[in-house]
Amino acid sequence: MTPLFPSVVIDLMGTFVFALSGATLAVRKQLDIFGVLVLAVCVGVAGGITRDLLLGDVPPMALKDTRFLVAALAAGLVVFFASRAIEKLNKPVMLLDAAGLGLFAVSGCDKALEFGLTPLPSVLLGIVTAVGGGVLRDVLVAEVPRVLREDVYALAALLGGLAFVLGLKAGLPELLAMAIAVLLTFVVRVLSVYRGWQAPRAPGS
Amino acid sequence: MTPLFPSVVIDLMGTFVFALSGATLAVRKQLDIFGVLVLAVCVGVAGGITRDLLLGDVPPMALKDTRFLVAALAAGLVVFFASRAIEKLNKPVMLLDAAGLGLFAVSGCDKALEFGLTPLPSVLLGIVTAVGGGVLRDVLVAEVPRVLREDVYALAALLGGLAFVLGLKAGLPELLAMAIAVLLTFVVRVLSVYRGWQAPRAPGS
Amino acid sequence: MTPLFPSVVIDLMGTFVFALSGATLAVRKQLDIFGVLVLAVCVGVAGGITRDLLLGDVPPMALKDTRFLVAALAAGLVVFFASRAIEKLNKPVMLLDAAGLGLFAVSGCDKALEFGLTPLPSVLLGIVTAVGGGVLRDVLVAEVPRVLREDVYALAALLGGLAFVLGLKAGLPELLAMAIAVLLTFVVRVLSVYRGWQAPRAPGS
Repeated sequence: MTPLFPSVVIDLMGTFVFALSGATLAVRKQLDIFGVLVLAVCVGVAGGITRDLLLGDVPPMALKDTRFLVAALAAGLVVFFASRAIEKLNKPVMLLDAAGLGLFAVSGCDKALEFGLTPLPSVLLGIVTAVGGGVLRDVLVAEVPRVLREDVYALAALLGGLAFVLGLKAGLPELLAMAIAVLLTFVVRVLSVYRGWQAPRAPGS
Repeated sequence: MTPLFPSVVIDLMGTFVFALSGATLAVRKQLDIFGVLVLAVCVGVAGGITRDLLLGDVPPMALKDTRFLVAALAAGLVVFFASRAIEKLNKPVMLLDAAGLGLFAVSGCDKALEFGLTPLPSVLLGIVTAVGGGVLRDVLVAEVPRVLREDVYALAALLGGLAFVLGLKAGLPELLAMAIAVLLTFVVRVLSVYRGWQAPRAPGS
Repeated sequence: MTPLFPSVVIDLMGTFVFALSGATLAVRKQLDIFGVLVLAVCVGVAGGITRDLLLGDVPPMALKDTRFLVAALAAGLVVFFASRAIEKLNKPVMLLDAAGLGLFAVSGCDKALEFGLTPLPSVLLGIVTAVGGGVLRDVLVAEVPRVLREDVYALAALLGGLAFVLGLKAGLPELLAMAIAVLLTFVVRVLSVYRGWQAPRAPGS
């Protein structure tokens, strides 16, 4: 058993909320119970597995530590049996996705720093970790991924990663820096949706 | 040259049948000879490469052992020149896919156990290996993957993996446990299609 | 800092032109500035990252060497602000894609040989490296990848890889063998588009 270290907890929470988002989309697409569980697991662990592959930490934690699979399956079951309640939330997939985005942006960045990468590639790996699950979710149901369609998405993960790195540099305790960075990513992403923030399009398009 | 060990043979057979399924779909989509060969190779080796990447066994066997490439290309050529005969089969892509599903579910699980993973993650890796090729095939031709659309798909791979693990625990010879598990996966998957087994959908959907 | 070795330069050039092709497609799909940058980075580094993962060279060079990220972002910005000029080119995505195809076919093959793979798998890895970025680009915008739709695509990368291997065998200096192979891939690919070369389709299709 892995010790209850913050970054594992962050990872498990990210897995859970991304799995919720995948399962919710699966229910909306009228997939059956197995499709819901498969999409929950895929979306929940894809970002972390991508991160671990890129860092050379294999087998990836999501395969070595059974709790990741359990978290993703639990999320799938929760959604399957409580989908009516979840659908009452306004834009549930977006909210869960924003939470997962923040959690994985930070966990990816944190793990990359631990593995000796410099800050800039670490922030980039955080973005990859954060958008990986959502990209897989959208590609599997044949939609153009949110990261390409939406104005402030990768940007929110980028800000979260930068906040985390700067927080560490400023001497904040790791857990506090993590919390601030996750919250920042979440708030920026959700605000951008509700306020309809738009990024500029190419002059010639 | 790798010795003629059962798990390599299983792997080569899986590569061949998945390559057949990819090539058959490519012909149906009216791709040319190169598209057929590319899809045959991609689908044939994707599951095994994913498995090897996740286990850290790189370069993956499909790149080190030339027979995998040869098997996939041969499957592509067979389909290209005999597509009329193959199309006379009822649901050929489904049948070949079901065979590949069983072969890779077992080979993935087997290799994961060899690499020291515990049974549950090994079964999971078997599922990943088994569905990898099919997911790539469907994503490349822009269809929602079978694993999400169909009721009993990942489940069949799961049952195969479990049967293999339990067979080994019960002291069966490895080759027998493999054969039983492959057959079980194939039969469950094919029966589920012909009988139209349906898994429950979410109460609120 | 990595030394200015030819294969890194080839790689950086490939990253740049593939990033241009990704960004140009993003602009055409009316994505905003962030979508353009994300697609530029993804397409620019996907082939190389795939190659490095398959060779076990992790973290991949695109994450360790900051110049790759810089090259891809620069390409994204160039396209964003100069998209009108670029669109005046006839088939700009195709031309850039053909250049990237040649550059990565050679760099993938070269690196595989350095890592001790034999020629045939090395040429195959070159093809994977070459088509990786374009496949990701097309999958992300929900199109069937060019490698499947177009007649002479993987074939051009195959010819480039073969030319490189044969050039080395014939005792050519590495840089010359590279230049010939890149040019060959580019010319074959571009000619095939303008001349409308068609590969045969399956007899029964």
